[in-house]
Amino acid sequence: MNGQKHYHTKATDNAAKTVEAHSSPSRFQLYGSCFCPFVQKVWISLEQKELPYQYIEIDPYKKPKELMEINPRGLVPALRDSVRGWGCYESTVLMEFLEDFGETEDVPPKRLLPGSAWLRAEARLWTDHITRHVTPAFYRFLQAQEEAKRQEAKKEFEEELDQFVEALVLSKRDEHGPFFFGSTELGFVDIQLAPWAVRIPRVLKPYRQYTYTPFSGHKPTTNISQEKAREAWQAWLDAVENTASVKKTISDDELYLDSYERYAQNRPNTSKVADAINAGRGLP
Amino acid sequence: MNGQKHYHTKATDNAAKTVEAHSSPSRFQLYGSCFCPFVQKVWISLEQKELPYQYIEIDPYKKPKELMEINPRGLVPALRDSVRGWGCYESTVLMEFLEDFGETEDVPPKRLLPGSAWLRAEARLWTDHITRHVTPAFYRFLQAQEEAKRQEAKKEFEEELDQFVEALVLSKRDEHGPFFFGSTELGFVDIQLAPWAVRIPRVLKPYRQYTYTPFSGHKPTTNISQEKAREAWQAWLDAVENTASVKKTISDDELYLDSYERYAQNRPNTSKVADAINAGRGLP
Repeated sequence: MNGQKHYHTKATDNAAKTVEAHSSPSRFQLYGSCFCPFVQKVWISLEQKELPYQYIEIDPYKKPKELMEINPRGLVPALRDSVRGWGCYESTVLMEFLEDFGETEDVPPKRLLPGSAWLRAEARLWTDHITRHVTPAFYRFLQAQEEAKRQEAKKEFEEELDQFVEALVLSKRDEHGPFFFGSTELGFVDIQLAPWAVRIPRVLKPYRQYTYTPFSGHKPTTNISQEKAREAWQAWLDAVENTASVKKTISDDELYLDSYERYAQNRPNTSKVADAINAGRGLP
Repeated sequence: MNGQKHYHTKATDNAAKTVEAHSSPSRFQLYGSCFCPFVQKVWISLEQKELPYQYIEIDPYKKPKELMEINPRGLVPALRDSVRGWGCYESTVLMEFLEDFGETEDVPPKRLLPGSAWLRAEARLWTDHITRHVTPAFYRFLQAQEEAKRQEAKKEFEEELDQFVEALVLSKRDEHGPFFFGSTELGFVDIQLAPWAVRIPRVLKPYRQYTYTPFSGHKPTTNISQEKAREAWQAWLDAVENTASVKKTISDDELYLDSYERYAQNRPNTSKVADAINAGRGLP
């Protein structure tokens, strides 16, 4: 392969231990591939909520029939409920499902969304921002091959992340935890961004010599200070990296370095996500 | 303006009567513009749930300060809760909010989402399909100026709609109502598509001589028949056009014909939606 790195098909390190610990048949089956951040959102949610699940590792370039039966588009994550003989897909839809499922149990597991209708709306608003603005900008930045396009994509990625950081500060009101809404526990909005946040040092740093510092290019639009925004981001990032449910889903650095080389070189047939970015479309 | 048609800033016909009937201060304020389908989703939801609201008509090309305070991006729909002094935006986020808000009331208004966690997940999955696949394809089809691109966009629009129609048939199980899940009442998924469905005869027909017939290009992927799919679509469309909450939000044909000419001609500065389609981006 001309010295090119090759994507991984098996989790390593902490993530491998978690896959191993969840290799027995269980109520839920999560179909995932080891370097996919969309899968990681659902995986973190299952861990955070302490729900019973079996993790089924698949090679995203060789999709098994069982996956295609759940999702004809063949994308992971896909989740099957073996008790109901029912399956579904799309990472945020699955996170909402796990939340609703929790409410049906006798002993409800940890909630990831707030109870208040108003705060739930804010959680979904920033979920929407992350999935429709931050995430695509991450791929545009990583895949851009020309310097001018790369600079433009970097600026866009930073502006979208800056908006999230500003919202993070404002969401805290009088609470002082590091997470969204000032919570001391990882929640719905945090999980939306966590997989890409942990890929900044693991993917954007080695391939783009990039470190994110909030509000490097402009000032916050509200009256929060640049310093407060930077403190809030650093505290959030540290807390995310140190949360057990996140750590349990992370492989060693080499896995990400290897698996994302094809994105960084913008090779053909990398993924439907990469194709959508190249075609100038929303994510698949 | 060289004989060009001009967009409207005031609803007409049934929609004008509804605006008039909701012109007094009320708990919720909906900021909307008369031809915007994203606004119409929230408007139909408020009507369907019989919630108290004031409709504030704005010119989308001259955004008032009150709107910018709720949504710095300046997009409608935006909703304000005057009791809480709180505002939010993004049409699907607002629909989820109204659903959650309903649950907090002493006498809950009509639910638009099913109660079952599994059916809620399916509702959100097809909501996601409509908002991320059907809706952008509608604009690509309408805005495409070259014949080859137009044909390609038309094919894509039809394939995405075909998938919805197949899901509609399968969602009914043993129920026989015309709406999603075989319901006899308009629900969450139906409302996601309704504004674009009613714009097929009002916009795509006059500007693209287009009528949608399910599975014109290929066969259903499951074992449902083409005939069953077509019957289900026609019954759904008729039921949508005849639902009071939908009818109340529709202006006369001329309003849509005039307001969408700039999209059909793909004029500059038409809207952020049009710009995003032209730039090859997901919707703003």
